Amino acid sequence: MVDNKLEQLGAKLPEIPTALGLYLPAQRSGQFLFVSGQLPIEDGQVAYPGKLGRELSIEQGQQAARLAALRCLAVVRSCINDWDEVNKIVRLTGYIQSDDDFHDQPLVINAASELLEYLFGAGGKHARIAVGVNALPMNACCEIEMIVELK
Amino acid sequence: MVDNKLEQLGAKLPEIPTALGLYLPAQRSGQFLFVSGQLPIEDGQVAYPGKLGRELSIEQGQQAARLAALRCLAVVRSCINDWDEVNKIVRLTGYIQSDDDFHDQPLVINAASELLEYLFGAGGKHARIAVGVNALPMNACCEIEMIVELK
Amino acid sequence: MVDNKLEQLGAKLPEIPTALGLYLPAQRSGQFLFVSGQLPIEDGQVAYPGKLGRELSIEQGQQAARLAALRCLAVVRSCINDWDEVNKIVRLTGYIQSDDDFHDQPLVINAASELLEYLFGAGGKHARIAVGVNALPMNACCEIEMIVELK
Repeated sequence: MVDNKLEQLGAKLPEIPTALGLYLPAQRSGQFLFVSGQLPIEDGQVAYPGKLGRELSIEQGQQAARLAALRCLAVVRSCINDWDEVNKIVRLTGYIQSDDDFHDQPLVINAASELLEYLFGAGGKHARIAVGVNALPMNACCEIEMIVELK
Repeated sequence: MVDNKLEQLGAKLPEIPTALGLYLPAQRSGQFLFVSGQLPIEDGQVAYPGKLGRELSIEQGQQAARLAALRCLAVVRSCINDWDEVNKIVRLTGYIQSDDDFHDQPLVINAASELLEYLFGAGGKHARIAVGVNALPMNACCEIEMIVELK
Repeated sequence: MVDNKLEQLGAKLPEIPTALGLYLPAQRSGQFLFVSGQLPIEDGQVAYPGKLGRELSIEQGQQAARLAALRCLAVVRSCINDWDEVNKIVRLTGYIQSDDDFHDQPLVINAASELLEYLFGAGGKHARIAVGVNALPMNACCEIEMIVELK
């Protein structure tokens, strides 16, 4: 079901991200899966580097947010045997690399939230935190982490 | 009890926030309620827009932190039938929109922490994270999220 | 075991941090211990104040990250009777006070991740979030918070 929907979107889960440092792509504790912060990486490169409100348009930020969310999902998928093990998305945090005068972080992260709801239906609805920051790893324009409830 | 104390403060829980994007005001998982990041909004407007260390005094930031915390509590209240269902506040994160040279984020967020302890007593004590960021949604000077333990 | 390893490193757990504001050094809820954000404080002073990419080298940032992680561990230790009560480190978030053009936050936080894995072995591996921010309390160059799973 989730796989079909991904196909309909023309979206493909990326290779399981190799963590940039000395940590796990995700850690399970009880019913929770804590997914490490993911950047919008495509073919080994950061897609849409730069700052919202400076080099990047909201549309570009949304593309990046979608890519980062897909990476989170690729990590989730690597920790389970079947999408049915996902009970719901609990919370998503989106950090947006922003110019000092950019204040539309929620619009950017909506792209990730829409994707989750499209893929998981009611179980894709989540709590959310959206903030701007001045600098992200690899000059990425966004970083997304999520907490997922597994069965 | 909590309602009485709010009245004594002359504070009123705002209308349940309409989420800015495509997400839930809060998500429950197990005993945890994850409240989405809340801005200091009053009568549909961001109160005290701007940066700490530039346009805003610490006192104004504290007023804003109190408003954002009240919005978190309004969300909590909308998820339960009675304040007695709140076991304790687990953790609060405060993001303060700061000038590069402003480093008193804890003083600002103390206003939220004091409110929680006043309202919930020992159950209002919480772990906390206080950081500055360069840009928040709607030019708000603070954003607060919390995790609450329910019975 | 953990104490021996700390000794081998020549590292000492600092005094239990006095919280800067009106909050707890850590809050337990279920199996989780949520540790409040910790700064790299040594002898009551912030060590390595300033920004990565401006005043500070990556090596200095790594020293600071190690100090902040040690403070997190001192808090954990104050909440348990024995290190054996630590099941695993669940997730670590590192906020790095960064110049706008600094994008090597993961390298800085690796120092904290390495320390955790050295001290706790497989149980020290964790999910992680690394972001830059423009301003931290007391002009600290990093702030680290963690979630720990207790037995």
